[in-house]
Amino acid sequence: MAISNLYRHSLSLLTDLYQLTMAYGYWKTGKSEQESIFHLYFRKNPFNGGYTVAAGLEQAIEYIRQFRFENSDIKFLKSLQGNDDRPLFENEFLDYLAELDFSIDLDAVPEGTVVFPNTPILRVRGPILQAQLLESALLNIVNFQTLIATKSARICQMAGDNPVLEFGLRRAQGIDGSISASRAAFIGGVSATSNVLAGKLLNIPVKGTHAHSWVMSFESERSAFRNYAEVMPNNSVLLVDTYDTEQGIRNAIEVGRLLKAKGHRLAGIRLDSGDLAYLSNFARQMLDDAGFEDTPIIASNDLDEDVIQSLNVQQSKISVWGVGTQLVTGGNQAALGGVYKLGALKDRSGGWILKTKISEQLIKVSTPGCLQVRRFLNDGSASADMIFNELGSVGANRQDSKFTIIDPLDSSRKRTHNAEEEDWDDLLIPIMRSGELVYTNPSLIQIRDRVMHQKTLFHPSILRISNPHSYPIGLEESLHQLKTDKVAELRNLKS
Amino acid sequence: MAISNLYRHSLSLLTDLYQLTMAYGYWKTGKSEQESIFHLYFRKNPFNGGYTVAAGLEQAIEYIRQFRFENSDIKFLKSLQGNDDRPLFENEFLDYLAELDFSIDLDAVPEGTVVFPNTPILRVRGPILQAQLLESALLNIVNFQTLIATKSARICQMAGDNPVLEFGLRRAQGIDGSISASRAAFIGGVSATSNVLAGKLLNIPVKGTHAHSWVMSFESERSAFRNYAEVMPNNSVLLVDTYDTEQGIRNAIEVGRLLKAKGHRLAGIRLDSGDLAYLSNFARQMLDDAGFEDTPIIASNDLDEDVIQSLNVQQSKISVWGVGTQLVTGGNQAALGGVYKLGALKDRSGGWILKTKISEQLIKVSTPGCLQVRRFLNDGSASADMIFNELGSVGANRQDSKFTIIDPLDSSRKRTHNAEEEDWDDLLIPIMRSGELVYTNPSLIQIRDRVMHQKTLFHPSILRISNPHSYPIGLEESLHQLKTDKVAELRNLKS
Repeated sequence: MAISNLYRHSLSLLTDLYQLTMAYGYWKTGKSEQESIFHLYFRKNPFNGGYTVAAGLEQAIEYIRQFRFENSDIKFLKSLQGNDDRPLFENEFLDYLAELDFSIDLDAVPEGTVVFPNTPILRVRGPILQAQLLESALLNIVNFQTLIATKSARICQMAGDNPVLEFGLRRAQGIDGSISASRAAFIGGVSATSNVLAGKLLNIPVKGTHAHSWVMSFESERSAFRNYAEVMPNNSVLLVDTYDTEQGIRNAIEVGRLLKAKGHRLAGIRLDSGDLAYLSNFARQMLDDAGFEDTPIIASNDLDEDVIQSLNVQQSKISVWGVGTQLVTGGNQAALGGVYKLGALKDRSGGWILKTKISEQLIKVSTPGCLQVRRFLNDGSASADMIFNELGSVGANRQDSKFTIIDPLDSSRKRTHNAEEEDWDDLLIPIMRSGELVYTNPSLIQIRDRVMHQKTLFHPSILRISNPHSYPIGLEESLHQLKTDKVAELRNLKS
Repeated sequence: MAISNLYRHSLSLLTDLYQLTMAYGYWKTGKSEQESIFHLYFRKNPFNGGYTVAAGLEQAIEYIRQFRFENSDIKFLKSLQGNDDRPLFENEFLDYLAELDFSIDLDAVPEGTVVFPNTPILRVRGPILQAQLLESALLNIVNFQTLIATKSARICQMAGDNPVLEFGLRRAQGIDGSISASRAAFIGGVSATSNVLAGKLLNIPVKGTHAHSWVMSFESERSAFRNYAEVMPNNSVLLVDTYDTEQGIRNAIEVGRLLKAKGHRLAGIRLDSGDLAYLSNFARQMLDDAGFEDTPIIASNDLDEDVIQSLNVQQSKISVWGVGTQLVTGGNQAALGGVYKLGALKDRSGGWILKTKISEQLIKVSTPGCLQVRRFLNDGSASADMIFNELGSVGANRQDSKFTIIDPLDSSRKRTHNAEEEDWDDLLIPIMRSGELVYTNPSLIQIRDRVMHQKTLFHPSILRISNPHSYPIGLEESLHQLKTDKVAELRNLKS
């Protein structure tokens, strides 16, 4: 399913200018077809959490497949000038772009997979010019949806068996910021969205009843509730805090009786302000006493996983959580810092040259190779993820069974795994070959189910919201050695 | 200028479902044409700052003007069911929606205006059904662009005379999240964006040269720099931190000499990691010693106004700031909490009923009326903003000259202003009348100039980044009284 009209048009210029100037450079220096391998990964789980939920692949695929430079794009590029007022690009290069057909291979972790820092979640292999042109948009799409799917998984985890509704449209970062957030939030586990366009485009259930303005538009709250229940007897959730919440609950119960009498039911009451712990208990008692034991209490008001945890601890009686701002923006972490780094380049003789970017900070040193991630499982429980180089001996010789893996940020931490004694799974799977799709996108429901299943693979200490245990990931020993040598060589070279 | 293809299609379903269920309710109860007044405002300056820059109006206008329910929208609404599996909406209502033509009046603060909490920045007057349908999208658009324009103004303020470049695409919240952020960032004062699509669609200057991957794709940094300078002699900013920054600077200088010899110039060097204070001084010294006194040093790496302030204090020698993530997402504040509240409703006899939403929290009590904001100016300096009710005596009698204004959050704080002795300006201006545009959108450059001029109206203590002084805003005395009475009445009523 196409995410929306937003993607109907070519978005080839949705890129940083330097991707195009580099593309021009590759073309001018005869390197445009040089085969390259790039990895997309992030360096830290968001929200100080212990895990991350990969998302955005379907839109990334769509972006690549619809990529083309339209006439207006070429015309715009032709208008760009350098500091001597001469054009930035030669016409011949622009002709090349206009004709460009993608021939890359794409491998990726399926959406909904639980993933960890420093392990590739997407890999592009193909002509360096093409791989470079895709960088900015792939990062934009995958960074954002992965951030929100993770936030959603955390919030839904705290909500437990109680459904979470996504109410974020009004605070989302732009139109697509809302639609993509609705999608990622659903992947992470929410039950429905208030965003009708997301419902239409993505087939996500939509929910909603009335706001304070409905109540204010009548002479009294009772009259507003009665009118609403008459008009929408099959969708009657009443918002009780416009004037006085306790009185609002009484009014809702009164209208609930009217609904009952006509063969309908009060579908819920909603609290949107005040002390949710106290008010939900008060409301539960009132509703129960009046025979509305099944009527759910929906709560909203700047909720996130921490507030829900606190309300759980306070034994609030909230049955449905409506979450907006924090869910669709990530709250105080508004971006996943995903990066896209060159891992290898084929030389003219057909051999691979492995590439590393070094840095003063160990966490910023990139890993060379054509990387794959093997997840070891013991009795259905994930024990570690191993990053290995498919261009190396492990990749070529899948019969290897014993592996030592080394933490990329602390080489004194090693573990061994045996592929004959443990189950394992290679996480990156083929998505495109020579520019053609070789993968069928699962439905959103399937992706959501995958998240739920994936979470059963990990120990609760890794999934917990605060101060989680670190899940072990590491470089396969020979890759670790290769990276170490490469870094030493570059530090000596300092060229 | 249309922002983009993103807006080419009807986005009428870009709304919360409850707007549609309420619209249905208004229609069923014969209230759909009842005249209403809604105000859009926020309750707190973002980033703990002292001011906010209004933005997003052009897209809000575009949204309203292109609003229509297409066949596929109606079809989707027809498919929605209530909890009895019967349709949520009657067909006759959907026919009404399909025919709907907006007849609202829109008043708003022009984009680029410096505004403050609790003062309306947008006002919709018209049939309640229409005003309600617009709420979610207006909030989405205005909240986000206002947030980013404000962030940009803060960052540019810290950068002073040094240009700021917006590099945020890869970390923005979705596609439109990036385009709208580029627009708002430009309004706030940045000089250019790396986002080529934003350049094309919005006519914002685009900048960019090369990334680490360019350097890594060559055998050595020197060869990478040389090749780049040969290919792009008119756009040669060299990124010097792929391997070793100090050596990188030396290599850049060497290539700078080659460029000079051929009649070109080294357009800059870029630092993207490490100690920017130290490295920029080191680079400045090296460049100066080599006769490259005019070569700018561009710095990037998770910058925001606080980091720039700190680098200024450390006397870094950075001439251009490249800012990404924090600028386009708002960083640790990812949403402006703008709200949209009913202020008045016309009864069947044609009189206005003023409306207030009360709350336990004073800040959440809405102000009734048809509100306007008058800014008083003394010797070209803004002294206070007064909120008054255009339906009241002040609005009707503009000859009034003496005003007492009262802080909405602390009624012991009062000020008086005299409209005969002071200059004043009413901030909300007519944008649409009966659904027709009566306003000409300024260009982005004009909006940007407005921000710069507006900032000259306020005392530096209000504009400062940390712990700013509060700019006085208040309710005109009779409006304050009206609100106080209204709240007392509602609290007594507890209906």
